[in-house]
Amino acid sequence: MESLDLLPTPCLVLDRPRMLRNIQRMHDRAEALGVMLRPHLKTPKSIDIARLLLQRQARGITVSTLLEAEYFSRHGLHDQFYAVPLAPDKVPRIAALLRQGTDLICATHDLEAVAAIERQAREQGIVLPLVIDVDVDRHRSGVQAGDPEFLAIARAIHASPHLQLRGIMIYAGASYEASDTEAIADLAEHIRQGGLQAQALLQSHGLPCPMVSYGSSPGTFFARSMQGITESRAGVYPFQDLFQAGLGACRIEDVALSVLATVTGRQPAQNRFIIDAGGLALSKDRSTQGTAYDAGYGLVCDVEGSLIPDLFVSSASQEVALVTSRSGASIDMARFPVGHKLRILPNHACFTAAAHGEYHVVDGGTQVMAHWPRINGW
Amino acid sequence: MESLDLLPTPCLVLDRPRMLRNIQRMHDRAEALGVMLRPHLKTPKSIDIARLLLQRQARGITVSTLLEAEYFSRHGLHDQFYAVPLAPDKVPRIAALLRQGTDLICATHDLEAVAAIERQAREQGIVLPLVIDVDVDRHRSGVQAGDPEFLAIARAIHASPHLQLRGIMIYAGASYEASDTEAIADLAEHIRQGGLQAQALLQSHGLPCPMVSYGSSPGTFFARSMQGITESRAGVYPFQDLFQAGLGACRIEDVALSVLATVTGRQPAQNRFIIDAGGLALSKDRSTQGTAYDAGYGLVCDVEGSLIPDLFVSSASQEVALVTSRSGASIDMARFPVGHKLRILPNHACFTAAAHGEYHVVDGGTQVMAHWPRINGW
Repeated sequence: MESLDLLPTPCLVLDRPRMLRNIQRMHDRAEALGVMLRPHLKTPKSIDIARLLLQRQARGITVSTLLEAEYFSRHGLHDQFYAVPLAPDKVPRIAALLRQGTDLICATHDLEAVAAIERQAREQGIVLPLVIDVDVDRHRSGVQAGDPEFLAIARAIHASPHLQLRGIMIYAGASYEASDTEAIADLAEHIRQGGLQAQALLQSHGLPCPMVSYGSSPGTFFARSMQGITESRAGVYPFQDLFQAGLGACRIEDVALSVLATVTGRQPAQNRFIIDAGGLALSKDRSTQGTAYDAGYGLVCDVEGSLIPDLFVSSASQEVALVTSRSGASIDMARFPVGHKLRILPNHACFTAAAHGEYHVVDGGTQVMAHWPRINGW
Repeated sequence: MESLDLLPTPCLVLDRPRMLRNIQRMHDRAEALGVMLRPHLKTPKSIDIARLLLQRQARGITVSTLLEAEYFSRHGLHDQFYAVPLAPDKVPRIAALLRQGTDLICATHDLEAVAAIERQAREQGIVLPLVIDVDVDRHRSGVQAGDPEFLAIARAIHASPHLQLRGIMIYAGASYEASDTEAIADLAEHIRQGGLQAQALLQSHGLPCPMVSYGSSPGTFFARSMQGITESRAGVYPFQDLFQAGLGACRIEDVALSVLATVTGRQPAQNRFIIDAGGLALSKDRSTQGTAYDAGYGLVCDVEGSLIPDLFVSSASQEVALVTSRSGASIDMARFPVGHKLRILPNHACFTAAAHGEYHVVDGGTQVMAHWPRINGW
């Protein structure tokens, strides 16, 4: 067994007990809400974590890239939803997965895209399952249910023998701009209502809509009701991160992912020290910027994973970052000798994890119990 | 030969003629200034590009990770500078490279680090070449030459039979906060003077300082003089990026790196369309934020690489980004059909490239002439 103290830095550390508690908490909540989870594996990108997510009440999985889809299919996960608008020229790779028995549901929100996808599906001789990406909060992709194109898309999909209309997807993207959990709950309800109206519209025109897929971890956790929603694509909940903590979606001590770093020098006159995890290892995501909760490029924990109050990563160049005090209180440099290991909590777990090829898994302490690889790229 | 139109997206495209012009321009300038280049390969991380950088007057290379050092050593590049503060427990990997005949110069700026590095070097039975990281502009790591610790570090290195004092490194990091090229030139001169003073101080105490290594591409290109500087660690100049263009260090049409993306849907009511290159493929670097030159998450070119005026990436989630008009002028959606390929210019080339495993190299057109792999990670 390796100790974190001996690992080359920077590298990714995953606290398994914290993650298991986060998973349990979401499962409990989803059960109370009566909604199935279809966990979004864009965050962990790991079969080892997928297996933990699927132990209880989750059924299929959600993926964000075809590389993920192919990887999880090879590992036997055949109920998949590729929940980004589909580029038509990706259909041949999807066809290969469908032929291998993976039910890979895709998404679109553009009538012209349907025509292009249909041509490709016909060429491949497949029946491609599709949902319509419905935009309720104008936050990201999608077509509004009130737009005549919405029904036209549904009819075009339903009319083709090479496409199969499975339903709709909605996404509470604006919950990431919410100020508190009450606002998230309000938005979640607004999104849910928007989704159910879109479903009712399809059904009133004799169009099938068995699937109403709903997105975001905080939008699921804080929803007052998930009635009518057939599945939630919650993604970040196993790891959590500082942005989620800032939203009130978790506590800082719930964050299960961190980047192990080594102190490489001190600058006492500037009340700061240097670590070897820079902007590449931590990611340049600054989602906590401008919030009361601004964490710079991350908060600092000791090697056991306990938060060191008042320290944060104030600046990050490619392979060098500066740690300083938020309050301006003088840092006791003797606590941070050169060679000392620290763990940095990320602003946004999905982006920080993506810089790394594997997880070093610990059971709460500093002993590495397992190495779990990630499937990065496209 | 593949065409960009047929590549799976997102992926990285490198325009070789633009890159060769950027290299030529920096070489011409370095020759005029009489300074040797030691190109920083943290940006390209590619042996194919390293060979182009070393064709004319560059001598050794600079690296930012030991994985780069090992990779370039395997490819026969044995004059290397690992230009970040050294974590002492990395010495065994460095020792292996030194034993294989790679002259890998390392850096430090902390007296305690010297002691820890010395212990490791002694254990390994090596003589480890070190420069002192001198902080002139308080921007990043380094010790100030006026701090008594500076001389103490130099003496400690010089006194050890297992360490060899090679000189100093300086970095014009604050040039990235400069408003124009005149300000960059002023700062470059300030940094150079600071470096030469540090060198003079060492020499006046009988300490060797053959190497005065100077950093940053714009700081080199716009310097009025490089007299006394023995080498420049310019890095981003082969690719350039929007941040460099914003500084005035290049023109937008000089940017040689882009991310190929596919249009996956349109939202005419919101005057925007969706592409399949999101925050992972483009990077979340927002270095142009807050400048007059704010480019969102990137500017948009057609597949041939010509800028499409007024379009920019306004929002980026993990695998989805939104393209809209900067002026608010209505976008002619017929120009951007679903399936259409575009190329997105990056804010910060080093970070955007780091999300990708290889370059698709084009000779100005849309035909891929070569695939050049990158060495990511640590």
